[in-house]
Amino acid sequence: MALIVQKFGGTSVGSVERIEMVAEKVKKFRENGDDIVVVVSAMSGETNRLIALAKQISDQPVPRELDVMVSTGEQVTIALLAMALIKRGVPAVSYTGNQVRILTDSAHTKARILQIDDQKLRADLKAGRVVVVAGFQGVDEHGNITTLGRGGSDTTGVALAAALKADECQIYTDVDGVYTTDPRVVPKARRLEKITFEEMLEMASLGSKVLQIRSVEFAGKYNVPLRVLHSFQEGPGTLITIDEEESMEQPIISGIAFNRDEAKLTIRGVPDNPGVAFKILGPISAANIEVDMIVQNISHDNTTDFTFTVHRNDYLNAMQVLQNTAREIGAREVIGDTDIAKVSIVGVGMRSHAGVASRMFEALAKESINIQMISTSEIKVSVVIEEKYLELAVRALHTAFELDAPARQVE
Amino acid sequence: MALIVQKFGGTSVGSVERIEMVAEKVKKFRENGDDIVVVVSAMSGETNRLIALAKQISDQPVPRELDVMVSTGEQVTIALLAMALIKRGVPAVSYTGNQVRILTDSAHTKARILQIDDQKLRADLKAGRVVVVAGFQGVDEHGNITTLGRGGSDTTGVALAAALKADECQIYTDVDGVYTTDPRVVPKARRLEKITFEEMLEMASLGSKVLQIRSVEFAGKYNVPLRVLHSFQEGPGTLITIDEEESMEQPIISGIAFNRDEAKLTIRGVPDNPGVAFKILGPISAANIEVDMIVQNISHDNTTDFTFTVHRNDYLNAMQVLQNTAREIGAREVIGDTDIAKVSIVGVGMRSHAGVASRMFEALAKESINIQMISTSEIKVSVVIEEKYLELAVRALHTAFELDAPARQVE
Repeated sequence: MALIVQKFGGTSVGSVERIEMVAEKVKKFRENGDDIVVVVSAMSGETNRLIALAKQISDQPVPRELDVMVSTGEQVTIALLAMALIKRGVPAVSYTGNQVRILTDSAHTKARILQIDDQKLRADLKAGRVVVVAGFQGVDEHGNITTLGRGGSDTTGVALAAALKADECQIYTDVDGVYTTDPRVVPKARRLEKITFEEMLEMASLGSKVLQIRSVEFAGKYNVPLRVLHSFQEGPGTLITIDEEESMEQPIISGIAFNRDEAKLTIRGVPDNPGVAFKILGPISAANIEVDMIVQNISHDNTTDFTFTVHRNDYLNAMQVLQNTAREIGAREVIGDTDIAKVSIVGVGMRSHAGVASRMFEALAKESINIQMISTSEIKVSVVIEEKYLELAVRALHTAFELDAPARQVE
Repeated sequence: MALIVQKFGGTSVGSVERIEMVAEKVKKFRENGDDIVVVVSAMSGETNRLIALAKQISDQPVPRELDVMVSTGEQVTIALLAMALIKRGVPAVSYTGNQVRILTDSAHTKARILQIDDQKLRADLKAGRVVVVAGFQGVDEHGNITTLGRGGSDTTGVALAAALKADECQIYTDVDGVYTTDPRVVPKARRLEKITFEEMLEMASLGSKVLQIRSVEFAGKYNVPLRVLHSFQEGPGTLITIDEEESMEQPIISGIAFNRDEAKLTIRGVPDNPGVAFKILGPISAANIEVDMIVQNISHDNTTDFTFTVHRNDYLNAMQVLQNTAREIGAREVIGDTDIAKVSIVGVGMRSHAGVASRMFEALAKESINIQMISTSEIKVSVVIEEKYLELAVRALHTAFELDAPARQVE
């Protein structure tokens, strides 16, 4: 008998029919003898509907009041799911964030969980009840309703699992697990049985939008085994956990992430003085533009080139800022490119394997794909290439690192 | 400077535009220097939408969970109104029933208020804030969300006014006050400046659906001056209060109520033994049929006739029950009539004036209207007449008791 926290997102509870399906699923776990805490989001579309209503009053609704309003979305879902469970003879009780007491700080619309009171929940579980908790919301020390920001329901699930020392936190989504890469790009992409928290963080932040990054960090910190599963299909999903056994069989890399939302800017002929990086990036950051990759190479003739990537939406804005900077510091020119893509290989296995990067570059060279930028971390190598080669690059790397599914498993 | 509790119902907050209008109105009171607590209902239609959603899961949704769900309706309105006030530079804060702490019993969907914690509200008022409270809802001693049942927002308003010892509880509606009778039937009907709680109770229960009966009882019990006003028109409305000065000028009757929702049943030739009334009404009550007027006259030849009225929807059901009873107790026959109407004159003034009933019967006789049943209380005389004479009767009584508006005041 295990204690499992199950989180169902907005799409999984997007209609009464789907809520009934979730109730069926929960019922089966109960019949297996597991103790279940369910965390649910607002029905899909509901949060947006509420925000739109608030925006009719004010472009900048007061955050405290916005939280009072938006938190009603999950409150409706918990009641419906509890009703659906009770209808099936499964004793159940619903709680808002305030009722559980999920204590947060007072940063309305983006609050952080400080503490969870597990007393009520434990008493209910002991009494044989399924506990249905509203995700995404909490209450501050003054009794004000808070929300955790978009995607916060994942965080609620993980935090509850940590507080209850649950055996597993299951995140139900519209995919059946974490894949070696996007199956739409590489038909031979495989579902991973297991992935480490660190790898998942790199995969998630690079565009595999299965889980909210914050919840993965949280799960890693408290060592809560996370499992990603499909809401309405059977299957084991992907377990995200700490890297316990670094076995021989462990693949060198776990997956290939990619991102075509970025644009590249280069400032050339920058006088190579101390503090020049700050002079360049300071104004970009002041303009609220987030920078992803940054590359500066050794200098020639006391000048250097400095390149970085930003989100494509910020490209024009960043270009303007950078041109001003170029004039001020006496740089030669500013050039930019929006037709780029970033491809990354991710895996804890590369820590203990030399030559992973060169194997990557070799595979790309074989396909005559030019590498424009390189950046590496302990468990990741990222390159920027011309966008039109993206699919080709991902497929080549998928094969080169032996990630392709065996032919017989492809359905 | 007064402390005023203002309650706005679902229609008054039925759209963002209307919520903005309510905010304007509240702002004006603030500018007059009054302290304001506003109680709001769910936006019109919202409660029904939520209940319909619950009914998709279950015909008999679990009351606890139904309350969790339905209470979100007011929660959305309080946030929107607080936003609209803050946008206008009026400091405001919203509270759910749980946040105020409106403590109720645990009778979900029809809970009763036990106690109100006024600490937070007083602190906010002192700090110059308008407090916006969700009507219709509270929390039980275990932290479960409860609702007070339909129309409970009026009760919330009165209870808050009592707890805060407010100078007045203003109930904003779609009428500009309480009238001597229905202006659709009697164009000369007048708005009353003042009416007593007792009279209002008789008027309300007889069909003038301006206020929820429970809130009037509550206001009377705690002596909270209640004022009925139009949400979006200027005017003094009608003040409902205790009968302080029984002056000479006081009119004998305050208003004329009527009701055409009833049907009449008579069981004839009932052997006149002790306990016969119970034998007749016991089975009716057991069938969950509510009885309004009951008339039994003296007997002839040891048999008597027994007549009562029920809601028209219950007529066929009541008829069947009564026919069974007639066979059992050996009564002669059962007859019934659905084409009836009840007309009542209401007024505390009749306590000190003899002959009010006969003046009523005289007025009806002048119009050749036959009286089928009569029932009286201390401040009310009701008669049952043939339905087709209803309008004629109400107008005749309105004139006979000098309630008609002076011609020059009719607009």
